[in-house]
Amino acid sequence: MNIVISGLGIIGGSFAKSLKKYTDHYIIGINRSPAPLEQALSCGAIDEIGNEASLQKADMIILGTFPEAAVSFVEKNASLIPKGCIVIDSAGIKTEICPALNSLAHKHGFEFVGVHPMAGKEKNGFAASDADLFCNASCIIIPGKAGTQAVETVARLAEKIGFGCIVYSNPEEHDRMIAFTSQLPHVIACAYVMSPVCKKHKGFSAGSYRDVSRVAHINEKLWAELFIENKQPLIEEIDIMTENLGKIKAAIESGDRSGLEALLARSRNIKEELGE
Amino acid sequence: MNIVISGLGIIGGSFAKSLKKYTDHYIIGINRSPAPLEQALSCGAIDEIGNEASLQKADMIILGTFPEAAVSFVEKNASLIPKGCIVIDSAGIKTEICPALNSLAHKHGFEFVGVHPMAGKEKNGFAASDADLFCNASCIIIPGKAGTQAVETVARLAEKIGFGCIVYSNPEEHDRMIAFTSQLPHVIACAYVMSPVCKKHKGFSAGSYRDVSRVAHINEKLWAELFIENKQPLIEEIDIMTENLGKIKAAIESGDRSGLEALLARSRNIKEELGE
Repeated sequence: MNIVISGLGIIGGSFAKSLKKYTDHYIIGINRSPAPLEQALSCGAIDEIGNEASLQKADMIILGTFPEAAVSFVEKNASLIPKGCIVIDSAGIKTEICPALNSLAHKHGFEFVGVHPMAGKEKNGFAASDADLFCNASCIIIPGKAGTQAVETVARLAEKIGFGCIVYSNPEEHDRMIAFTSQLPHVIACAYVMSPVCKKHKGFSAGSYRDVSRVAHINEKLWAELFIENKQPLIEEIDIMTENLGKIKAAIESGDRSGLEALLARSRNIKEELGE
Repeated sequence: MNIVISGLGIIGGSFAKSLKKYTDHYIIGINRSPAPLEQALSCGAIDEIGNEASLQKADMIILGTFPEAAVSFVEKNASLIPKGCIVIDSAGIKTEICPALNSLAHKHGFEFVGVHPMAGKEKNGFAASDADLFCNASCIIIPGKAGTQAVETVARLAEKIGFGCIVYSNPEEHDRMIAFTSQLPHVIACAYVMSPVCKKHKGFSAGSYRDVSRVAHINEKLWAELFIENKQPLIEEIDIMTENLGKIKAAIESGDRSGLEALLARSRNIKEELGE
């Protein structure tokens, strides 16, 4: 296949590198700024630096940009996308963008399959991309209105480039789950490091500080967009979190040792039932 | 030295194993239940299974039990502790226990040095102990009223068994820092996994779920004691956390993208200034 990747950040760049490492597909890169394209070409992550016109020869298009930018890119260039071409996104939210991309696909005769690679780092950009970023990660696929064959093609390709499992979902379920598994930990990390004590932590900290604060090294433009575009499920999770913090606080404040033990045991049991 | 370790859990067990691996001291183990003692003897982590009477020949005593239990153990056996013997604890809170141990030391003529090894795992017991648990970790020393030579002996021993740095502190500063670096992440992890969505996370999660939830696999008896014995600084940190979660929530709820970006950028800057 000719695969065009639009946006060579950490995710687009990792798609390029893993596709070159594990498959024989021909990879064309498109990016707003030229530097990542030149780096990608010189390290062999892409075969060719392309532009919008390259879409005309694409069998597959991978959207590696921010969610809104991915939709505008397709809106702007829909007439260039060949009939039957498979377009996949990689955005962390789906309800806000899948319907628009489904409509564009229907109108212009291409296939759109929603994809969310459950992999990342607290760093960004092409420099942070990695041929094995997806190794053993989960690949969430939102088939939407795409044909069975297009969905199959995406799933087989995901397996080839290292994903450990494929999970099929719909935009609403995806966004509710992601609010908890990914967005809330980012909110927590950012709120956590805002404590005035944080700046003095060195020498007094170990693994639990490191782990909860890790993703506070955040790309604020991307995550502000993701949070606001998934407002309702995320607000719900923040409220649940705040309520549960309040329950633990109340038990500590009243010195209710057995009540506190029961609350903490509940959490330990949840982890144990999950085999974690 | 003859070193008696009271309590062969993860911390006491790791002291035993690291002392045998990196020094030539003679190690005597004491434990409420016999199983860890037998395991420790058969794997060479201790040289001898002891009992309270062993304290009479101790040059150093390491308290590996829960904080309150450590104080009662010393109270009960203070008359057996030789003059000049160095007693160290390993508890995660200090204001509640150091004064009592300082008084006992003064009264009975031994030296007490507060110690908090900043190392641990989300597992407990002798089985989880490790000769290299302290490798590169920070060792917090609370000299209190101990003599300079006793403090020096403890610091040199800590370096020998792998600690990467020694931080000197006092009970109040220690407890304020630990409330943020260690206790709050445990509270957060427990509150986090209480979300009803947690049980369905598999396939939808990656590193940020794993990291924030890790320490929810908690020893509820130990941590309920630690939280309640450090009530005031911990409640303060929970309140700060809740307030900052509220600020981020408000920006999301009102769709204030630039305000949200500014908040998240503040967190990223804190991590960057710390070089993390």
